[in-house]
Amino acid sequence: MPEIRHNIITREWVIIATERAKRPEEFAKANPRRPPSVAHDPKCVFCPGNETLTPPEVFRIAQDGAWQVRVVPNKFSALDAAGELTRRSEGIKRVISGVGIHEVIVETPAHDRPPALQSEAEYERVIQAYRQRYDDVTRDPRVAHVTLFKNHGERAGSSLEHPHSQLVGTPIIPPQVRDRMENALRFYDETGDCIFCSVLSDELVDQVRVVTQTEHFVAFLPFAALTPFHLWIFPLRHRASFLEATEEELADLARLLRSIQRKFYFGLENPDYNLSIRTPPREASGLKYYHWYVSLIPRVTRVAGFEIGSGMFINVALPEKSAEFLRNTPGEPART
Amino acid sequence: MPEIRHNIITREWVIIATERAKRPEEFAKANPRRPPSVAHDPKCVFCPGNETLTPPEVFRIAQDGAWQVRVVPNKFSALDAAGELTRRSEGIKRVISGVGIHEVIVETPAHDRPPALQSEAEYERVIQAYRQRYDDVTRDPRVAHVTLFKNHGERAGSSLEHPHSQLVGTPIIPPQVRDRMENALRFYDETGDCIFCSVLSDELVDQVRVVTQTEHFVAFLPFAALTPFHLWIFPLRHRASFLEATEEELADLARLLRSIQRKFYFGLENPDYNLSIRTPPREASGLKYYHWYVSLIPRVTRVAGFEIGSGMFINVALPEKSAEFLRNTPGEPART
Repeated sequence: MPEIRHNIITREWVIIATERAKRPEEFAKANPRRPPSVAHDPKCVFCPGNETLTPPEVFRIAQDGAWQVRVVPNKFSALDAAGELTRRSEGIKRVISGVGIHEVIVETPAHDRPPALQSEAEYERVIQAYRQRYDDVTRDPRVAHVTLFKNHGERAGSSLEHPHSQLVGTPIIPPQVRDRMENALRFYDETGDCIFCSVLSDELVDQVRVVTQTEHFVAFLPFAALTPFHLWIFPLRHRASFLEATEEELADLARLLRSIQRKFYFGLENPDYNLSIRTPPREASGLKYYHWYVSLIPRVTRVAGFEIGSGMFINVALPEKSAEFLRNTPGEPART
Repeated sequence: MPEIRHNIITREWVIIATERAKRPEEFAKANPRRPPSVAHDPKCVFCPGNETLTPPEVFRIAQDGAWQVRVVPNKFSALDAAGELTRRSEGIKRVISGVGIHEVIVETPAHDRPPALQSEAEYERVIQAYRQRYDDVTRDPRVAHVTLFKNHGERAGSSLEHPHSQLVGTPIIPPQVRDRMENALRFYDETGDCIFCSVLSDELVDQVRVVTQTEHFVAFLPFAALTPFHLWIFPLRHRASFLEATEEELADLARLLRSIQRKFYFGLENPDYNLSIRTPPREASGLKYYHWYVSLIPRVTRVAGFEIGSGMFINVALPEKSAEFLRNTPGEPART
């Protein structure tokens, strides 16, 4: 019989539809993505040589005079970087001026080198850029919260092939973040514990949903995973905010995230996916009840009317089976 | 400058990214869908002649001995129709047995006749079937809530071309419904008014987001529409539940919904879309603070990492412009 599982952190209920279940390898075949075939595309705005086609650079990590990671304002920014923060109400309608920061993190000069194909040293620089920009942008007094994410592939919403991530600093705290903070505070009030630390200890006892554990992080499928291979990566040590991660933790995270993305690439045939750093507003650093993490969602199934109409998800794979598959998937190319 | 708008009913904030805005007709061209080319497909499980390929029929509307609308249990049901409702907790993990009802409403015997191409009389039967099954399934004591929806096209999550809708009766109230009920109750507590009625009067004063008004319903774009052409259809008279709609209201709804779907079909080149009846649990009938409605979301843009990572949406079209476009789009084929 199928079961309906509860996610205590997000308060989501997920139908784990075991009767419809597919074997993990079937999802791999569903949407293989071809990697780009050229290392340099003269028409790509993110390729070296085309630096003048983007708005002026705000950050770079360079080596031997050449940029390795480069951050620029999004040319098609969803928010206005220059304006003033204003709020107004007209009857029951509320509006905030659309000010904020929207940046693109160009991860590598190589057009054909997504995270799975970057070296450890290269991918560490990407994570360093994430943290540096996160730190900078959250200091803008108009910015209430920063969402940092990567869309890999067209089904994940990416229109450009060149490996890149994005960051959006909004003048409000997104409702999803606010709701999770409220829920975490309630749990802390009732139990005296961080809800994320509680879930993490539970997963470490169960082990069946754990994919990889490193010195500082655990990658696991949530008990109520929304989709096949939906992954959460929690820091082992309680840390409210991404800003509180140490240099050593960041390097460890980079190695782990790269290896997970290699498992996707080589084990699931390079599926489209979304990655996001889930962290509270800057001033939440030090909170005892909140805990930052990373989420990865391969887009191997579609969000349809039931999910839109109810907010509930149907997962057609057993999280324990998906975890086992990823655990046993090497982060290396298959030998032929 | 872009603006960030608040939806007082869902408590969502949406970035209306006017700088990125496209003209309404550009979305039409983005994803044209070809209609099926055959009126009868011998391989289709929903086409007449293949009735034995589905689980036994639970409901039909017939004319001259032939079925016009037919409802069957979903062969690949997400939930088990036979089991017992049980709940268990293991530490912080909560699980409910996956019992419930998952049905398919086959809207027409004609493989190539989506709602936009059905006659008014035909589409009225579809809405009657919606209501009849909704009424029946909500009487199952294990069912806490019914989600009724339609996926049109592959991007909307449909894998079968033959026009059909679905209904899922879950043993829990979906968190999204619960959250909206809580929010509506709070508004009622503070103001004495139904939050939906308040939004509706506001829209009728503004008029700029109204697409169509009939005797009993108003179709409009929410002030903070999540996507281009995201539509809400509210009953004018306060009614908590879909069950409380009169026969006359249902017939009026059928005509309106058909005409909207014709606007999509002829004006937006038959985009994929999701339709859902948003109604509270059965026992909420009569509530003063809740109000059922219909939601339509054409899938002309993609949900990407920002939406997943923050729960906020970026709408690249001004709702007032989208409304104007739909208002002026005839529900008839263009003359050539």
